[in-house]
Formats: sequence, C-alpha cells, structure tokens
Amino acid sequence: MKKKPLILLSNDDGIDAPGLYILAKALKRFAEVKVVAPSIQQSAVGHAITVRTPLRAHEFRRDNEIFGYAVDGTPADSVKLGIRSILKLKPDLVVSGINDGLNTAVNVIYSGTVSAATEGTILGIPALAVSIEYTQHPDFGPAAKVASAVAKFVCKHGLPKDTILNINVPAIPANKIKGMKFTRQGRSRWDDKFYQRKDPKNRNYYWLAGDMRILDHDDDVDQVALKKGYISITPIHFDLTHREFLEKMRREWDGKLKMKL
Amino acid sequence: MKKKPLILLSNDDGIDAPGLYILAKALKRFAEVKVVAPSIQQSAVGHAITVRTPLRAHEFRRDNEIFGYAVDGTPADSVKLGIRSILKLKPDLVVSGINDGLNTAVNVIYSGTVSAATEGTILGIPALAVSIEYTQHPDFGPAAKVASAVAKFVCKHGLPKDTILNINVPAIPANKIKGMKFTRQGRSRWDDKFYQRKDPKNRNYYWLAGDMRILDHDDDVDQVALKKGYISITPIHFDLTHREFLEKMRREWDGKLKMKL
Repeated sequence: MKKKPLILLSNDDGIDAPGLYILAKALKRFAEVKVVAPSIQQSAVGHAITVRTPLRAHEFRRDNEIFGYAVDGTPADSVKLGIRSILKLKPDLVVSGINDGLNTAVNVIYSGTVSAATEGTILGIPALAVSIEYTQHPDFGPAAKVASAVAKFVCKHGLPKDTILNINVPAIPANKIKGMKFTRQGRSRWDDKFYQRKDPKNRNYYWLAGDMRILDHDDDVDQVALKKGYISITPIHFDLTHREFLEKMRREWDGKLKMKL
Repeated sequence: MKKKPLILLSNDDGIDAPGLYILAKALKRFAEVKVVAPSIQQSAVGHAITVRTPLRAHEFRRDNEIFGYAVDGTPADSVKLGIRSILKLKPDLVVSGINDGLNTAVNVIYSGTVSAATEGTILGIPALAVSIEYTQHPDFGPAAKVASAVAKFVCKHGLPKDTILNINVPAIPANKIKGMKFTRQGRSRWDDKFYQRKDPKNRNYYWLAGDMRILDHDDDVDQVALKKGYISITPIHFDLTHREFLEKMRREWDGKLKMKL
C-alpha cells in the first residue's frame, strides 16, 4: 500500500475554530494530518511573523486526544514553527482554512488564511487556502469536500514551485453550486470608514468599518465567479513584480529619472 | 506658482525612527509632508490591519512643533487612518521609510514598510517604499536623496494604477554607488532556524533566527543589483495571480479535477 500523504493544516481563526475541525476530519480520510494553528483568532494579520518576541506552542486536546499544536503567534508563525520545529519533517502539502469569510480581491493581501498557505510555499511545499462566504450559520461541508478533492489532486499531480491555490466557496446549498472556475484575483477593495468615538475620558478612538467597492465585472475574476454560483480557484504566488510596468520603466524611464547622490 | 505636492509619509519602524525623520526633511524641500506612522516599531507585520480593536492616534511633537500623528497600530492602519480620518484628503503620493534593512526577495512579503506603501495604492494613490541595507551605523543620506528624486519624478509623471515602487539602497558610500537598476523581485528566502530554550519554569519557547538562502543570480533581480553596488527599484503590485499557471490550469486541469458535492 502506498504511504498516505502528510498534510500540515493551519488557519487564521484559531485552533478551536469549527472550520479547521471539519476540514481536518475530511482530510484524514486520505491523509495523515498534523494541525499547527494559532492559539487565538488572527484575522487580517496579513503575512506577519513574530521576530521580536519568542514563540510558544502547546498541545491542544480535543475529543480526548491530541488534536494539534497551538502556537501563540500568527498563521505564518504557525506554519514556520510547525514545519521547522514541531513536525521536523516536510509535509507533502500545507492546507489553511476553512476560513469563515471570503478571501478574494484585495482581501488576499490582508488574509491570515492565505498567509499560512504562502508560508508553506516559501518553505517549498505546495499549499491551498480555503475560505467560504460569510453567513450567520456557516455550512463548512461543501468547502471541506472541495478542499479534499483539490488536496488529493495536488498530492498526486503537484503544483509548480511557489504556487498557492486560493479556493473560495459561495454560501449556497451544495446542489446549487454550478461547478468551479479557475480565476484571477479581483481588484475590488474596501471603501473604508472610520467611526470616530470618544472614550469615557473624552479621548478619540477609531473603529474600522466599510463596504466592498466592486470594481470587477469579468467572468474570470474570483469575486464574479462566486457571485454567479461557482467555486473560485485562483493560483497565486508571492512574486509581486509588476512585469508589464517593469518593461515600460526599462524602455521609458532610463535616462529620464536622474538623481545626484 | 504651482501648488506643492502633498505627501503622506509613514514607515514601520515607528514615528520616532531616524530614517523617517531624515526622509521627512528631504521631502519637505519640494512637498508638503504629513507624517502618520505607527507609535512603536512594527517590523515584519506584513499587510496586517487592525479589525478587532479600535485604533488610537495622537499628535507627536518634535523640534518644538507637531511633527505628525502616531497611530497605535500597524503601518497599513496608519496609512488607512491617515488618509481616511486624519488628513481627510487624498495625498498625491504615499512614501514609506526609510527602513533600516533591505526589503528584497521574500522580505517584500513580510515587510511592514512595503505594506504601508501598498495601502496607499489600495486607496488609489501612487506609492514608494524605501529601504537601506542594514549596518550598525546606518547612513540614511543617500537613500533620502534617491527617494526625493523618485518622489519628485512620480509626482510629475505618475504611476500606473495600483503600482508601488520598492526602492532599496546598498550600504556603500554614495560615491561608490554605480547607479540604479529597474529590477524584479528575487526568489531568495530564509533558512529559518528556531532556537528552542527553556524558561525559568522549564517550559519551551522558540526564537526565530536564520540566514538568507540566495536563490537569485540574474542581474535584473533586486538582490543581485544591490550586491553589485546599484540602487534597486522594483515596480510591484498586489495582484498575486500566477498568470502562467492559470493558463495552464485552464488548458490542462479542466475535466481532470473532479469533485462530488
């Protein structure tokens, strides 16, 4: 019998999040799953890592057994520490999720869920991030199935170096989902509002709020595919180079941009 | 007389960092400069934003006048709050730095300096991130001149939508700098090591350390240009889509990746 693949599972909602638990159960059907995740909720931390204080990790028990390791740090910390110090071996795949809230468009940049997966690829391991559309009573079931199917496929076929699959699942019943689309990341972003309030000592404080401003309309974009009832799968990487503009700079800026040092 | 451009200046080392102060002085020669920066050191926070607690900001005085606003949050928080609530108007440019330490290759992902600039472009404003190579006695002078020259150029010529210029300056005397190169982001990354230690109560803790593993050798890559004595300017964006692989997925994965929901 072929050896089961080894999967490191993490998230940004914390090791006790229901989305992580359901995904762990689904992945365990075909893989050995090790859970290393933040001890507490870490939404919108981006790709933060802890460099100025030490990290701690402790066993986390669930259903009368060791479920995984809780790290007092960020999602990226959890994956780094998990692979380098806790597992001490290289998993075949890193999976992050299931996040309760979509990670599409500009949210990809703020996402702790995506950053855990990104850290996997930085360490040379293919990775998936899995998120569902936010609702008051989330059903993680369909997303767990999608994630399992994609994880199995990737364990078999691999991914190019430094590639993450960013999977987002719409909040509609499984039988209404139309299929899946391979998409690109959208450009939609938040119209932030800060609510300014006064504390009991009459000092200002600010709450971030706001709505998503939709700038995407093409069918092949993450947000649009979801809106139309598809699962969105976007291949992403961490090379931020703006290649088109780099070529333009080389052609047009050379000689024009001058400076004296 | 033409109106002076308005620049929002931020960083990740904190509002009292010398790199920020020197850059503010240099930019003030041709621009109106508003400083909104984290109240304390925020290295390696990536693109974190504060969503679960409110933010606070206070005036920060220096040289017997108001130098800027200190935000109890991340670099991205500072830029968001600065533009949306403190300035309440759109600057012509966002500048972040000068960071004491290069932001090249994989460090771009972890960088708070870059994230402040990225937040500027998310809000629709062209942005620069400026960093120098770390030394024990940093000289921010050459980088301040480079940043000023580029800032002036960008205020005049603009940048394409959603584009950040990531500027890195080598730690060599100004007269040894060979010029500048328009580069792409490198692939080099850290060989992380965690030092496991015991606290006085005999519990484990882990310190992150490690060395950069050099994977880049091409002349047009940020790291290599710096090593050869050039200033590196990399145009970056926040669209993480892996376009080449997306096309391959569309050609080869459709029909093969199956799932039952």
